[in-house]
Amino acid sequence: MTSKQESLSSQIPDVAGNGLINRRALLGRGVLFAGAAVTGVGSSLTGAAADPLPVDPWSMGPGEKIPPYGVPAKYEKVVRTLTNPNGEPRTQQARTPHHLLNGTITPNGLHFVVARTGFPDIDPAKHRLVIHGLVKQPLVFDLEALARYPMVTRINFIECGGNSAQLFSKDPVQQNVQAIHGLLSCSEWTGVRLSTLLEEAGVDPKAKWLLAEGADGPSMNRSIPLAKALDDAMIALYQNGERINPAQGYPMRLLLPGYEGNMNVKWLHRIKLVEEPVMAINETLQYTYRVAGPKIWQFFYPQEVKSFITHPSPGLTLKGAGFYEISGLAYSGNGRVSKVMVSADGGKTWGEAALDAPVLSKALTRFRMPWRWDGQPVVLQSRAWDEAGNIQPTRAEMIAARGEPRAPMGHMNVITSWAIDSKGEAKHVFA
Amino acid sequence: MTSKQESLSSQIPDVAGNGLINRRALLGRGVLFAGAAVTGVGSSLTGAAADPLPVDPWSMGPGEKIPPYGVPAKYEKVVRTLTNPNGEPRTQQARTPHHLLNGTITPNGLHFVVARTGFPDIDPAKHRLVIHGLVKQPLVFDLEALARYPMVTRINFIECGGNSAQLFSKDPVQQNVQAIHGLLSCSEWTGVRLSTLLEEAGVDPKAKWLLAEGADGPSMNRSIPLAKALDDAMIALYQNGERINPAQGYPMRLLLPGYEGNMNVKWLHRIKLVEEPVMAINETLQYTYRVAGPKIWQFFYPQEVKSFITHPSPGLTLKGAGFYEISGLAYSGNGRVSKVMVSADGGKTWGEAALDAPVLSKALTRFRMPWRWDGQPVVLQSRAWDEAGNIQPTRAEMIAARGEPRAPMGHMNVITSWAIDSKGEAKHVFA
Repeated sequence: MTSKQESLSSQIPDVAGNGLINRRALLGRGVLFAGAAVTGVGSSLTGAAADPLPVDPWSMGPGEKIPPYGVPAKYEKVVRTLTNPNGEPRTQQARTPHHLLNGTITPNGLHFVVARTGFPDIDPAKHRLVIHGLVKQPLVFDLEALARYPMVTRINFIECGGNSAQLFSKDPVQQNVQAIHGLLSCSEWTGVRLSTLLEEAGVDPKAKWLLAEGADGPSMNRSIPLAKALDDAMIALYQNGERINPAQGYPMRLLLPGYEGNMNVKWLHRIKLVEEPVMAINETLQYTYRVAGPKIWQFFYPQEVKSFITHPSPGLTLKGAGFYEISGLAYSGNGRVSKVMVSADGGKTWGEAALDAPVLSKALTRFRMPWRWDGQPVVLQSRAWDEAGNIQPTRAEMIAARGEPRAPMGHMNVITSWAIDSKGEAKHVFA
Repeated sequence: MTSKQESLSSQIPDVAGNGLINRRALLGRGVLFAGAAVTGVGSSLTGAAADPLPVDPWSMGPGEKIPPYGVPAKYEKVVRTLTNPNGEPRTQQARTPHHLLNGTITPNGLHFVVARTGFPDIDPAKHRLVIHGLVKQPLVFDLEALARYPMVTRINFIECGGNSAQLFSKDPVQQNVQAIHGLLSCSEWTGVRLSTLLEEAGVDPKAKWLLAEGADGPSMNRSIPLAKALDDAMIALYQNGERINPAQGYPMRLLLPGYEGNMNVKWLHRIKLVEEPVMAINETLQYTYRVAGPKIWQFFYPQEVKSFITHPSPGLTLKGAGFYEISGLAYSGNGRVSKVMVSADGGKTWGEAALDAPVLSKALTRFRMPWRWDGQPVVLQSRAWDEAGNIQPTRAEMIAARGEPRAPMGHMNVITSWAIDSKGEAKHVFA
């Protein structure tokens, strides 16, 4: 920084401890963030001699061929991490690298996956969706039939019920955002409302639940309340504009906005209307959690309000004191995010972050907070509120509600804390 | 249809000629769209004998490996069409297949491209952005520096000024949506506001324009009014969450929401503040159009309000009379789409389409209209309005404004008409 810049910078009032700044306070201040002065480049850059920048080799000839289907630049190594890269006969998980992304949409190639045995290779011309059970008229649909129905497009996140389970360990695990929070993604989904199909089949008044079954080998299945099916459930056919990816349920999946990931059944094959939940293994052994004392959580659905900081975070080392943007993701399975607060002093003081528009219900929301780091150790945290009145809990509140830490624990929406040391390195801590 | 369904269907009032239906009128009617009855599947499907559907081969064993970066299913052949697939030394164009997509986001691999010689192979570690000319302090930025700035995320379309030029030919060209309207796409963009960087450099009061230059071989350049740069211009670094694709300007492009595609300079390398437009070839020979009489259009920027029907459209043949959804895309470079009307009788009567939420400024908006086709020939049209008060013109209005058809003609936002014949095939017509 020049001394003039330092002087300007010191006039900007903080909104919370350790250098959190109100975004509006920055406007019109001419603050030097990180741009370097160019020596010798003045108002005239017409002569090559006046240009201190050499002409880059890629500017000196024709370019590369445009492919029929584009892929990221060869310099980018941004991929999902895989728990079972050789596809051995057990669950495969693939995590979204949120620390290397920005915005709120997840590209289809980087959407998280949890699949019991990988993805089935489904021929879309032969795949059928059947609606049966307590209906007036059982129905079967192929893709061509579904294409004739009224559709709807909506941006929604999906999060695995087990995402961020590491936050409830006894000591803070030293992992990055992708490892801790990577079972979460957000897409624009397009498909047919489930209510439209149920209306056509005619629901028997005795039916209160439905069983959704996938066409994968393990036949993933979950009991779903009829009320949700008639509310905002969708038979999703497109993801970010194109047919959904094979690992996302091609050629169709159930979308239950805001509900635990595994209930959004992929490779959707059958929907059976029933009177009661069927007590599938995925709601008795799996996805059921013991909480404080003898209490068991079962049949809980929405992913609770949550947020975490993606920049900075472990692996993204700060390069010296000065201005940075703290940014991250916030979301709630119960509606819109109403507020995100950020702290740089481990929760002592908080400043309200800006939210990128539009803030959509049950979708990822990007929050941003300008920050002037003085080079000293700090602890960064974010905390989210939703329009339903829910508040993301502190660790102390989580322990009070669920008892002492033990694995596995789902629906873990506690505040994440990153300690930044004087070298600019981020570590996971409990604060 | 069953006779009961036919009877229900005939009770639903149309909102315009040839079977356009109000979406709300459908609710609760139990209308059979296209689902087929399943014989023998009743309330009990526990025994295999009761199931008329054989178990599909992909449900009988383990699945495929989840890859680090997912790709569309092998059954999908949805790609961009290329005008110059061998990369010969002339312009390469790649068109988005909107007739095979749904929703509003374009996947990065399918975003349209117009590139004079393909894409430059830019090493992101060596690329620089320079701001110079009429500024107090010329500045240079690398990617690491830009990463420290406050960013913003926004969903915007980009459309080539030459998109849909075929609509002004003397006779209707027989092409599909991809060929006619495919130089249009929509992404979630994330980056640094240009105004933030200009504020840091300090704009000389004499500066009224800026020259944006790309690092590609032909050094794409355009003069841009300073007012736009200070309004909503962005140095875009991310597209749908990930680093922008090589053909979209990797590692950075200029985003001028709503403005003619070529002004959104890709592979952005230098921004020079100047007093007057520099009269680059791209604003004298290219992207300047003769209109009625001796008039020339030059320095016109926003893409005007426009819409077209993607489903049905040429190549997507209807399979017999019955219910369908008419859907398409609407957008305006001047703000939000306020209304889309659809006609099934060549413009005699119109019904208002439903718009998928959220309707965003300078972004693609998906419109939808339920339709009961009686199997007779019809002409489908859509017409859009924007919040700035603009109305998409008819062909007669376009000719009155611009004179008799002749090529080339940019900014062509006239109504598109698809004639559906009794076989369900769509053809491009002027109506």
